[in-house]
Amino acid sequence: MVGDSPDSLVRSSDPLHPANLIPELCRSFYHLGWVTGTGGGICIREGDKVFIAPSGVQKERIEPGHIFVLPYPQPTPSPHTDRLFLRRPQLNLKESACTPLFWNSFELRDAGSCIHTHSQHAVMATLLWKGPAFTISHQEMIKGVRVGGTGAALSYLDTLIVPIIENTPFEEDLRDSMAEAMVKYPDAPGVLVRRHGVYVWGKDWEKAKTQTECLDYLFEIGVKMQLAGLPTVLNPIENTNE
Amino acid sequence: MVGDSPDSLVRSSDPLHPANLIPELCRSFYHLGWVTGTGGGICIREGDKVFIAPSGVQKERIEPGHIFVLPYPQPTPSPHTDRLFLRRPQLNLKESACTPLFWNSFELRDAGSCIHTHSQHAVMATLLWKGPAFTISHQEMIKGVRVGGTGAALSYLDTLIVPIIENTPFEEDLRDSMAEAMVKYPDAPGVLVRRHGVYVWGKDWEKAKTQTECLDYLFEIGVKMQLAGLPTVLNPIENTNE
Amino acid sequence: MVGDSPDSLVRSSDPLHPANLIPELCRSFYHLGWVTGTGGGICIREGDKVFIAPSGVQKERIEPGHIFVLPYPQPTPSPHTDRLFLRRPQLNLKESACTPLFWNSFELRDAGSCIHTHSQHAVMATLLWKGPAFTISHQEMIKGVRVGGTGAALSYLDTLIVPIIENTPFEEDLRDSMAEAMVKYPDAPGVLVRRHGVYVWGKDWEKAKTQTECLDYLFEIGVKMQLAGLPTVLNPIENTNE
Amino acid sequence: MVGDSPDSLVRSSDPLHPANLIPELCRSFYHLGWVTGTGGGICIREGDKVFIAPSGVQKERIEPGHIFVLPYPQPTPSPHTDRLFLRRPQLNLKESACTPLFWNSFELRDAGSCIHTHSQHAVMATLLWKGPAFTISHQEMIKGVRVGGTGAALSYLDTLIVPIIENTPFEEDLRDSMAEAMVKYPDAPGVLVRRHGVYVWGKDWEKAKTQTECLDYLFEIGVKMQLAGLPTVLNPIENTNE
Repeated sequence: MVGDSPDSLVRSSDPLHPANLIPELCRSFYHLGWVTGTGGGICIREGDKVFIAPSGVQKERIEPGHIFVLPYPQPTPSPHTDRLFLRRPQLNLKESACTPLFWNSFELRDAGSCIHTHSQHAVMATLLWKGPAFTISHQEMIKGVRVGGTGAALSYLDTLIVPIIENTPFEEDLRDSMAEAMVKYPDAPGVLVRRHGVYVWGKDWEKAKTQTECLDYLFEIGVKMQLAGLPTVLNPIENTNE
Repeated sequence: MVGDSPDSLVRSSDPLHPANLIPELCRSFYHLGWVTGTGGGICIREGDKVFIAPSGVQKERIEPGHIFVLPYPQPTPSPHTDRLFLRRPQLNLKESACTPLFWNSFELRDAGSCIHTHSQHAVMATLLWKGPAFTISHQEMIKGVRVGGTGAALSYLDTLIVPIIENTPFEEDLRDSMAEAMVKYPDAPGVLVRRHGVYVWGKDWEKAKTQTECLDYLFEIGVKMQLAGLPTVLNPIENTNE
Repeated sequence: MVGDSPDSLVRSSDPLHPANLIPELCRSFYHLGWVTGTGGGICIREGDKVFIAPSGVQKERIEPGHIFVLPYPQPTPSPHTDRLFLRRPQLNLKESACTPLFWNSFELRDAGSCIHTHSQHAVMATLLWKGPAFTISHQEMIKGVRVGGTGAALSYLDTLIVPIIENTPFEEDLRDSMAEAMVKYPDAPGVLVRRHGVYVWGKDWEKAKTQTECLDYLFEIGVKMQLAGLPTVLNPIENTNE
Repeated sequence: MVGDSPDSLVRSSDPLHPANLIPELCRSFYHLGWVTGTGGGICIREGDKVFIAPSGVQKERIEPGHIFVLPYPQPTPSPHTDRLFLRRPQLNLKESACTPLFWNSFELRDAGSCIHTHSQHAVMATLLWKGPAFTISHQEMIKGVRVGGTGAALSYLDTLIVPIIENTPFEEDLRDSMAEAMVKYPDAPGVLVRRHGVYVWGKDWEKAKTQTECLDYLFEIGVKMQLAGLPTVLNPIENTNE
């Protein structure tokens, strides 16, 4: 598929090359408690190429040579089966089970990167917000989030709404309910999965990462506020200093 | 404005040069959870030059070449508009939105450095202290704080009072209410912004940083005490061992 | 017992050699709060050799030269007494007091590695779950755990059960009650020790480590859920979104 | 006072030399939250020389050249005044305000090292244990603590008792009440200071450090247990699994 050896797709001396960034970012996410126990991950799409970490490995020990490269778009409607690859690692590895969910962010939001975490703040938010969405308002951090994940920045006066879908035994089976939630909540910057974690995307890896940080911060402070009996959504016309 | 190239203002092999310190300190603040999601920051003033980080970037990945240098004082009364620069990065960056707030610390306290964090301890303090100020007494850490941020050290017998101002949709619009709070509370070492974070300043970057650490510690333990039902301010003549 | 000097057993330039891995992993466990105060540790078995860290030392400062190597199996039924060594450090060190407990994982589960932590999440779980086992269901992280520690991966629909044994004044005296619990709960991936910590094992060090991460995550979120009044085990047919 | 230049007392290529260890340990304590905001510190005594960090500086940025060296014992009964030095830094620094308290550990326990932290776990323990001592029993971590700080290891069946003294506006004024508490509680491995922190000592820096880790762990879990309504001291004959 490419003139050069497929391995050249993941060999670069540029620290910002996706094959170098993914291992570095996964190490950093590990230390944030987002991807322990092999869970979670990140993908980066650059034009017609998608770089994806392997499944079921220690996320803080990924090396560039472990990265999968897939063509985008995939020739078949679903990347569930008969997935095409531009490059596979020689080790006995499988691409991330999140692949079809990452694809949602490309197809429905034209995202350039998507991050999946098992952060306990996300999981606790899905346990304390028992309905179909996490909501919070009047937090400065909301301004770091973008409409639909790839649009304009939210305002301090906007209420953040992140839909929560129910978990399924197999990660790829979340594909349809995640897509449905993205259609139903076009402004949502991510999708929470109850008892599981969150998917967040952005135009590029920087924006996907900073939005994941903002959302994780908002899940954390939202959980603290709920446990302290503080309201997490204020009436827009309310004086915030009750 | 300077004989040499403006870029020479941010090029130095001295690790304590502001253009080297700001990236290093921001990385360290990132790991403390103070400046995730591009929020927060630090400025350093050395005589007639102010070094400021860019706005909306990953704070743990700033490089010396990203730093703005502004002359101090600015020729116009407000740095809101027509701000003058001695050096701007070549990238498409904007100076920190905190710039007018940092200026308050220079003009009203003769500070040499000002730090802005989105620490959750600060934000939780503004949610649990619903009035116009956070107060705490009888904590050893109070001794690490200085009267008005740049004066003499507080005593263990002093009650720490940090005013809380209400947040606004645009950061620069906090300028006037922050200045008002600084006038009304001349002894306060910083200003909390409700649902947002805190501004702390000092005579130089070391003192701004150590005071931010002390205040963050005091917000954190104050929040823990409130949630545990412990009083955070004691009568000065009370035996602290009730 | 070996042709070469016994010290050659712990000298290798391969970072994945057990004598290099144990120090690196212990440093990392220290920063997770699992092995502070000299507590906890890890052993790795490769075929007929077992690599074990010393007892009572700072776990983040172990060096390859401090590692003990024991033959496996041991010629006598119990490694309590007259333990045989292939290599002992020259310093005045004693092998980990966990040795007989690590042996349980080799003999009863054919494990290749066993980890012992004093994680506060594990200890708090043993305090809040006052019966003979910790139980949790409907958490994605359960999928990272293997049946009996070395078998197939659990499903999201499985309830995780980790037996809790009572602590004893001497670590080696836990040997029999740990073995009993492993026989009584053949599917359990680890054994909690009340007011003490947890033992977790796996086919190799990677799996022992990632399972310890999953279990620690589950103890932590289980404790948070209990303290927040949330049920930690759901009826399998229950809609998880009550 | 010494044949060589006083500066040679703090210059060594050995990473375990006190002048190199103190900066390294202080950096590590900073990241544990024990010595933020310039608070806390550590001293190491080797025979007739005591190595002490400066007061009021950023503890994570100490360099060997900042270290004070004092002769031990001091010729006058109190090191309060007219303290003798073997070496002082050339910078405008003052020796740690903890010096007289560190001296207590040398004189009353023959300690080789003493650590002072402002850990929030220690402070919260002094707020929740309102009487003259913190007490906890039936925790494995108690075995990492030594009788009187420098004696034999405690048993799992021992109840740990750490006296709490009241804070004073000037650190050196704690000297007498700390000494009194050490006389009254000869078995105590450290002394808590209410609303301030803790002093812990050991025969050498390793033991001072590992005991500080054990105590900090016990303060932390004790606080968690109290807040969860769990008893922290059990009757010795009680079945721990109530």
